[in-house]
Amino acid sequence: MAQTKIIPPVSNAYNYPLLIKRLLLSGPRYAPDQKIVYADRSEYTYSDLVTRIHRLANALTAAGVQAGDTVAVLDWDTPRYLECFFAIPMIGAILHTVNIRLSPDQVVYTMNHAEDDLVLVHDDFVPLLEQVSGNLETVKGYIQLTDNTSAKSTSLDTVKGEYEALLAQAGDHFDFPDFDENSVATTFYTTGTTGNPKGVYFTHRQLVLHTLTQTGTLGFNEQMPLLRSNSVYMPVTPMFHVHAWGVPYAATMMGVKQVYPGRYEPELLVDLLKKHQVTFSHCVPTILQMMLDTESIKTANLSNWHVLIGGSAMTEGLCRAGSKLGIHLYTGYGMSETCPLLSTTYLTEEDVRLPLDEQINKRVKTGIANPMVDLEIVDANGQPQPHDGVAKGEVVARAPWLTQGYLKEPEKGEALWEGGWLHTGDVGTIDPDGTLMIRDRIKDVIKTGGEWLSSLDLENLISQHPAVAATAVVGVPDEKWGERPHALIVLIPGQDASLEDIQEHLQQFVDSGEINKWAIPQQIDFVDDIPKTSVGKINKKLIRDELA
Amino acid sequence: MAQTKIIPPVSNAYNYPLLIKRLLLSGPRYAPDQKIVYADRSEYTYSDLVTRIHRLANALTAAGVQAGDTVAVLDWDTPRYLECFFAIPMIGAILHTVNIRLSPDQVVYTMNHAEDDLVLVHDDFVPLLEQVSGNLETVKGYIQLTDNTSAKSTSLDTVKGEYEALLAQAGDHFDFPDFDENSVATTFYTTGTTGNPKGVYFTHRQLVLHTLTQTGTLGFNEQMPLLRSNSVYMPVTPMFHVHAWGVPYAATMMGVKQVYPGRYEPELLVDLLKKHQVTFSHCVPTILQMMLDTESIKTANLSNWHVLIGGSAMTEGLCRAGSKLGIHLYTGYGMSETCPLLSTTYLTEEDVRLPLDEQINKRVKTGIANPMVDLEIVDANGQPQPHDGVAKGEVVARAPWLTQGYLKEPEKGEALWEGGWLHTGDVGTIDPDGTLMIRDRIKDVIKTGGEWLSSLDLENLISQHPAVAATAVVGVPDEKWGERPHALIVLIPGQDASLEDIQEHLQQFVDSGEINKWAIPQQIDFVDDIPKTSVGKINKKLIRDELA
Repeated sequence: MAQTKIIPPVSNAYNYPLLIKRLLLSGPRYAPDQKIVYADRSEYTYSDLVTRIHRLANALTAAGVQAGDTVAVLDWDTPRYLECFFAIPMIGAILHTVNIRLSPDQVVYTMNHAEDDLVLVHDDFVPLLEQVSGNLETVKGYIQLTDNTSAKSTSLDTVKGEYEALLAQAGDHFDFPDFDENSVATTFYTTGTTGNPKGVYFTHRQLVLHTLTQTGTLGFNEQMPLLRSNSVYMPVTPMFHVHAWGVPYAATMMGVKQVYPGRYEPELLVDLLKKHQVTFSHCVPTILQMMLDTESIKTANLSNWHVLIGGSAMTEGLCRAGSKLGIHLYTGYGMSETCPLLSTTYLTEEDVRLPLDEQINKRVKTGIANPMVDLEIVDANGQPQPHDGVAKGEVVARAPWLTQGYLKEPEKGEALWEGGWLHTGDVGTIDPDGTLMIRDRIKDVIKTGGEWLSSLDLENLISQHPAVAATAVVGVPDEKWGERPHALIVLIPGQDASLEDIQEHLQQFVDSGEINKWAIPQQIDFVDDIPKTSVGKINKKLIRDELA
Repeated sequence: MAQTKIIPPVSNAYNYPLLIKRLLLSGPRYAPDQKIVYADRSEYTYSDLVTRIHRLANALTAAGVQAGDTVAVLDWDTPRYLECFFAIPMIGAILHTVNIRLSPDQVVYTMNHAEDDLVLVHDDFVPLLEQVSGNLETVKGYIQLTDNTSAKSTSLDTVKGEYEALLAQAGDHFDFPDFDENSVATTFYTTGTTGNPKGVYFTHRQLVLHTLTQTGTLGFNEQMPLLRSNSVYMPVTPMFHVHAWGVPYAATMMGVKQVYPGRYEPELLVDLLKKHQVTFSHCVPTILQMMLDTESIKTANLSNWHVLIGGSAMTEGLCRAGSKLGIHLYTGYGMSETCPLLSTTYLTEEDVRLPLDEQINKRVKTGIANPMVDLEIVDANGQPQPHDGVAKGEVVARAPWLTQGYLKEPEKGEALWEGGWLHTGDVGTIDPDGTLMIRDRIKDVIKTGGEWLSSLDLENLISQHPAVAATAVVGVPDEKWGERPHALIVLIPGQDASLEDIQEHLQQFVDSGEINKWAIPQQIDFVDDIPKTSVGKINKKLIRDELA
């Protein structure tokens, strides 16, 4: 370690910890009368937001919450949730944003594993909790969130009251304490194809640094005015999903208008877009597609709507369809473990003058790593690969806001951080201009002949055969090559194709240099159906297990 | 202290320290071919910048510099200086930005006090160092900075070589180490009217946080596109003066074009403005006035030039003159002790549609506190004063980037941080909309009848009397009132006025409620001249001493 000079502060200097309460200083100062809107229901100002956060802190404290406790929230995207983003960590407690899309068993698992003390639950999720409350081992009480004038009755015991009623009773000043910036502020769970959900967690310091960097990034690019003082922000990524990508913190810090859409209903989302002239949203491709499929979108002016797409890859088709409606589409990349900011589309003045097709090619890629993010693609030995747009490697990252392990599972955390870099589990290429492109999940990539072959790339090529309806490719162990690709193919009814036909089809891509010759599968099963997971993705783990 | 939850990172997680080297990740990634220009002399790309920083690190190490050493720089505003902003702290050493405007004795004092080990000195300052080198107690060697093809000869011994020659010999990769983010990165000296200059110092963590916040702030406001991806940045505040307000770090992090003007020559500055279509600068009012006074400014298109004014107050006259030329003028507030970002003009959509006079009123005020900055005005007991635009208080601040003391003078550091807030020594008001306005220095403010009376305000009112050419007001002790104002007045030749005339003149402002009746001086000396300091400011300390 270098012997640098460190001077202790004078005894009375204020050693400023990076706490979430500090993100609340500037927004209300810049724009005290700016609006925060709840769907088609209600709205209030930034000044109100501050008061409500203080009241919520008093209400939580009155309900017995102490620093170090964990408070779970089950809600749609609401200003209430935004208040929880601030008040719960600001009193030193931990906000557990419960994934309401998990199965009841998984919800119980995560709430027990996180050791939730108090639960804030929307009416719509009370039946779920009534069903499983006997299995919740640490929960001491509930607060009901309701969108009706009075809370529904519930069989849950230990209900402390209804959110708005508790806020109305609470004092409007809370003296938020200073504490260690490395205190845990939030936690939530990430699911894989196997095993229990894993808990990630983020500290005050991490969330402040994520917010500061995101604010600089989202407003800075002249061609991409995602989040600026005049913006109107509406999240269309659930707030339980990686803090809605952290944007509610950034938007609040800067005092921009925010619209929280409640439960996602495509027609309502489009109506809110129109009514509030929303300029910035972020979402997964599926939600965008649902919005594009509505009737009301046909009469919307979308030319000022900038949308960051993440969660899974935006197809060129979706990008083209959205762009033709005037929407400005960009890609963001990150995951639960990364808070999530890692990379974002970065367009230059020249890029935005390109013809649409060339722009689409830029916009669907995974973007350039954000400021402060150190990002590489590495081979199985951790060696960085060239940035030539061809060489593939696992995407690994360092940044000041990455989970420092998995909750109570140190061995999984150490696997995540192998070699001191966070392993994303994604395989990508980096173009000479720095643009990252995700090609596959590393567990699905086929390591053959010393090369990494993307199962997705090979599926795309096989799909181009006119007789193929669907296909899935996995790697199977091979003594000579390490692994070889094995394809499942569903043929279009009435069409026919043989192993040789498919191989011949693929030979053209070998000839053109797109793939190596060992990428051509020797083993192809023609099947009736491809196994899928519960969310409709190809279940490659099951295919590999069945082929083993 | 609240008992929050802190989870130790897993053993191999990378615990990301906030180091200046991390600010260098994104700019070259966004814009490797973007230009960094040196006046009318030369230019290079961001890729070159990275290579030159690595080479400089190798050259410094070869010259014997180690982590913890202090490296002094005496230079004009150059890309070399930008390289020093990065390379010196990145090897764990401390950059001492020497104030070349100090007297030779003061330069010697600061260099001995900072314990400078190596000195990088421009040809223009070699004579100064030749004159005093016998008195430099810690300096072990020099590197010459020259703008000519070969370095001038010098009588300084222990010259290690010329900067460009040393870089040419050095390897182009340096493995910059990680170390504690609280390591000191920079130091420089602030001067008062009495005593020796005082050393302030900033850590890697502080400079990174300042940069992240500044980037968000300067690009975010739709009405104030100060620093954005398409910007062309030219500092007109010396780089030895509070890191040129930290903007070189922010500009480099984001990959914008930078123009370094060398020694400030008004005609050259205007030529560079025109040639590079500079969009963003910052400077003190005097330099702007000098540029406005040039011949060549008359043919410049200044409608895209955004200028942040600081250091001393921008007068309404200067703001009007600049605005009429199309320049977008804003005020920034901070000081050596504060890194310096504290507050900046903040204009809304409505503000920029106001008539010019009303805009000027907004633009000359000291602005709204920046994100992460906790700022108050307090009375002598540290009690916050109302934000009503009338109540005066000393401006105190907390932010993550304030000097944590004065170098080797803990008692002065403790006075700076009295009560855990950094005391700026400025007296201001805060408007109901949050806008700060600096009214006086606290040592010049007159504490009379339980009120704080701004000596500047009173001088302004007295100046409005038609016979008054110049005036200075100081507080003198008074048994009944605490202090009472005492005025010196220089009359316009051929004009006459008595004590009573002046009092009668001031009575109208008492009648209109602008000042209290005890603000009217009972003691007025009609004098031939007002004592001034060496930089032309009214020397109120001397006046008070002479009246005592």
